[in-house]
Amino acid sequence: MAHLTDIEIAQAKELQHIKTVANKLNLNEDNLEMYGKYKAKLPLSLIDENKVKENNLVLVTALTPTPAGEGKTTVSIGLTEGLNKVGKQATVVLREPSLGPVFGIKGGAAGGGYSQVVPMEDINLHFTGDFNAIEKANNLLSALIDNNLQSKTNNLNIDPRTILWKRVIDMNDRSLRHITIGLGGTANGIPREDGFNITPASEVMAILCMATDFDDLKKRLGNIFIGFTFDKKPVFASDLKAQDAMAILLKDAIKPNLVQTLEENPAIIHGGPFANIAQGTNTIIATKMGLSLSNYVVTEAGFGADLGAEKFLNIKSQHAGLNPKCVVLVATVRALRHHGGAQKEEYNTPSIERVQEGLKNLEKHIENIRKYNIEPVVAINSFISDTEEEVNFVIEACGKLGVKAVVSEGWAKGGEGTKNLANAVVDVVENKATQFKPLYNWTSPVKEKIETIAKEIYGAEKVEYSKKAQLNLRRIDRLGFNDFAVCMAKTQKSFSDNDKLIGRPEGFTVTVREIEIAAGAQFIIPILGKMMRMPGLPAVPASENMTIDNQGVISGLS
Amino acid sequence: MAHLTDIEIAQAKELQHIKTVANKLNLNEDNLEMYGKYKAKLPLSLIDENKVKENNLVLVTALTPTPAGEGKTTVSIGLTEGLNKVGKQATVVLREPSLGPVFGIKGGAAGGGYSQVVPMEDINLHFTGDFNAIEKANNLLSALIDNNLQSKTNNLNIDPRTILWKRVIDMNDRSLRHITIGLGGTANGIPREDGFNITPASEVMAILCMATDFDDLKKRLGNIFIGFTFDKKPVFASDLKAQDAMAILLKDAIKPNLVQTLEENPAIIHGGPFANIAQGTNTIIATKMGLSLSNYVVTEAGFGADLGAEKFLNIKSQHAGLNPKCVVLVATVRALRHHGGAQKEEYNTPSIERVQEGLKNLEKHIENIRKYNIEPVVAINSFISDTEEEVNFVIEACGKLGVKAVVSEGWAKGGEGTKNLANAVVDVVENKATQFKPLYNWTSPVKEKIETIAKEIYGAEKVEYSKKAQLNLRRIDRLGFNDFAVCMAKTQKSFSDNDKLIGRPEGFTVTVREIEIAAGAQFIIPILGKMMRMPGLPAVPASENMTIDNQGVISGLS
Repeated sequence: MAHLTDIEIAQAKELQHIKTVANKLNLNEDNLEMYGKYKAKLPLSLIDENKVKENNLVLVTALTPTPAGEGKTTVSIGLTEGLNKVGKQATVVLREPSLGPVFGIKGGAAGGGYSQVVPMEDINLHFTGDFNAIEKANNLLSALIDNNLQSKTNNLNIDPRTILWKRVIDMNDRSLRHITIGLGGTANGIPREDGFNITPASEVMAILCMATDFDDLKKRLGNIFIGFTFDKKPVFASDLKAQDAMAILLKDAIKPNLVQTLEENPAIIHGGPFANIAQGTNTIIATKMGLSLSNYVVTEAGFGADLGAEKFLNIKSQHAGLNPKCVVLVATVRALRHHGGAQKEEYNTPSIERVQEGLKNLEKHIENIRKYNIEPVVAINSFISDTEEEVNFVIEACGKLGVKAVVSEGWAKGGEGTKNLANAVVDVVENKATQFKPLYNWTSPVKEKIETIAKEIYGAEKVEYSKKAQLNLRRIDRLGFNDFAVCMAKTQKSFSDNDKLIGRPEGFTVTVREIEIAAGAQFIIPILGKMMRMPGLPAVPASENMTIDNQGVISGLS
Repeated sequence: MAHLTDIEIAQAKELQHIKTVANKLNLNEDNLEMYGKYKAKLPLSLIDENKVKENNLVLVTALTPTPAGEGKTTVSIGLTEGLNKVGKQATVVLREPSLGPVFGIKGGAAGGGYSQVVPMEDINLHFTGDFNAIEKANNLLSALIDNNLQSKTNNLNIDPRTILWKRVIDMNDRSLRHITIGLGGTANGIPREDGFNITPASEVMAILCMATDFDDLKKRLGNIFIGFTFDKKPVFASDLKAQDAMAILLKDAIKPNLVQTLEENPAIIHGGPFANIAQGTNTIIATKMGLSLSNYVVTEAGFGADLGAEKFLNIKSQHAGLNPKCVVLVATVRALRHHGGAQKEEYNTPSIERVQEGLKNLEKHIENIRKYNIEPVVAINSFISDTEEEVNFVIEACGKLGVKAVVSEGWAKGGEGTKNLANAVVDVVENKATQFKPLYNWTSPVKEKIETIAKEIYGAEKVEYSKKAQLNLRRIDRLGFNDFAVCMAKTQKSFSDNDKLIGRPEGFTVTVREIEIAAGAQFIIPILGKMMRMPGLPAVPASENMTIDNQGVISGLS
């Protein structure tokens, strides 16, 4: 069976003018700031808090994923097509892809097969410039810090050894992880160690995603904690009078972007933090925009439900007062085989025993979702290598837990392949939804918040703190940051902080190695294990196989 | 006399929808890719080589400028307003501003007073993302180089000590001038020295500006010379298969941007290289776009005529087959006082003696322009501190040389203040224009090209080459780059390579310290003196005084 590539499918689609897509949201041309014919920004004035409360929010998350990912974006888009097919007015609200993975291994993030958002190339490249604006705002603050270090008239007495703020670039570039800057004499600044993170890991990205309006954005930018003076006083971005200039750079980036799905349904794409090191979900503003304009909003949170969904619910939904009415847990038979012990080369080899063993991972995620007082639906994201026996086994096992599991064929068939899933989601939303309940309150003590997540969600028996983490806790207390949300940084490959513990590990200890502070985002970030904030390129970068002709037709982008 | 600031004037203007502006160029909505309501990209298919030949190109340049600049952009915009007022269909074609100076000292580059292009904020900030695209293409190549250094399967054997390709960032950030990268162990690449230039100094910017179409762009990107292998073979971007991926990142950046002047005339803004280290003029594609759509095109080249105009004529016009019919030399009385010996604090003090002495600088520029077989017009960019006596003195002095000098009051009055200048330009274009003649052919020997510029344009008596420059010359010969254009890197403050030599220095020697290669742009770049490719921020950065309110209204941007 010869498949078209994602980009071939996307290019074959004749796009609707974005005005036509906007009409489906009862918007006219005056409401849009068009970026070409197929993209538009939506002004914040369209947000209507009453509609946000009335309309229906559906979160798509996944079991603990394999490195290839479980296809959450594809399922989110497919489900939105399906909901529209079964008569609901539905919009998908997604994150923007980072350029880094586009030229590296993973490719972009515009869905796949017949469940894609388009124009796929634009979305995967610069899109409407939001990532660039975030990068510039981040790096302006860096330039202001280094400029201040050597300023005679304006000096804040910042100790360069304490600076926590790093530069960012939206590129997979390992050689920028650890650098020394300011070399070459007095004209070139003060020498110090620094490094670049990838742009989605910037606190400015987290801030943009947490901001509820423009004033809130500016306040948060001013609250960014940079480091200490030589006499141990904390220094914030506002001490450098940076917040307005940073907000100026973000004046358009704060507006959500409207595009379309392959079936011409509305898609809002905005913000793109990673879920293993940040909150991993689109902006609060975009989610509210979707809910203001659409009866159903389907959105996703990155990686497995222990990371993305946990943060979506405890951080984003709690802060923004959102009430998700259904959680879709995406599972692939491949991933179930993996959690049942299959090696990578066996992922496509049917095995009912492995699926049975692997189901323990999915079951734990189902239990977890119910702790938030939300009813899950399992979407089995269909692969060619799945057997009927395995699929039926999953459906029955979920049935025993009272959970509806439905095969999702959005990749192969678009909305026609997700009508069953859509109906199952509608059933939960319309008949079984109650008020969502976060797992912890931001105002609880820091250690209590961390333990709640580790024990209730991960299934850990114990949380240990390194010496450094204990010092970090005292610093957080001294700085008055105890009421921040806990944004865990943990591997996506296991419930635990150990990549190797697949399935449903039990009796394990997680170790908090250090705790970072994102004071503008209002996060404390416990780091469990070694987290990478700047990926590298593979031996043969994806860029090598990309082509573009003089008509602008691109191939090799995925 | 209380003046409104530039941004206040710009914000008071009620903008026309960009569709209305496009109508003046006989374009309809289908021809445009809109970026919001007031910006649009123009597809390359609108370029018509016959119209390019038929229509009239006017170049605005200046005498040797003071650090504040002579107001070339303001005069270019004002002149365009004036040409439209006297019944010509005129479009201004400009460079895009760099973000670096916006947050530093100099501010943006969207004109001033009542001669501005709008929306001023957008143009001075991210605009349509072109600079970002250039930056990403540049830095993708850097990431590919560093990735290759440690690649096992794909290794090109590049000697890290020979890598000439630098990263770029559109920020004034001196602490990135000289850095070490790849630190921290085997996972983080190969340690080596590197540095960031400001984005307008990227060779990718030069390439974008020199490219005649998309295929040419791609070919030039592949031709970028990176460094040498350990066995001394040259390495090009094409060896890393980088050109298509870089071109993909530039697929929209290659399209010129349409905005409007304060008097609702068309303005095309595209590309932004600096003129002291690069060719300093907008893209060939934008100039041709302007000439395809408009009877008169007014464009500018950076800094004094010894830099910007020299490169505009010998590099850009020669390569693209353009025929500028008139050159406007902008002079301020302030700058004439400066060249007559006034200290900075005396710039606003009237002095007929200093103006008389300073005129020698202007005279040399007039002589130079005539060497290209083009007739100059002098625009006296009016300042409040100018006396009638001084202005009349300049007009008479120019008159003695057969050159029309006209006061330009575009800053204070818009097009009403530039009608005389417009009429003088029309007179030259319609009655005195002949075929422009470049000063050297690209095919001449390298040293001959350098000497022609240094002696004929700068007025140098002699050119000396450092040991390094002599080695560089041999390398250029060995690599077969003798037929490239010469893109001089020289201070903008003097005809010579010594900042201090104001006026019309004579009998001096210029020293070529080294010669760089931009093989994609097809430039060899002799460096005269120390040229800075990464500016720093001032003690009190402009960013500190910027504000934005929750309606998005910005102040403090200039």
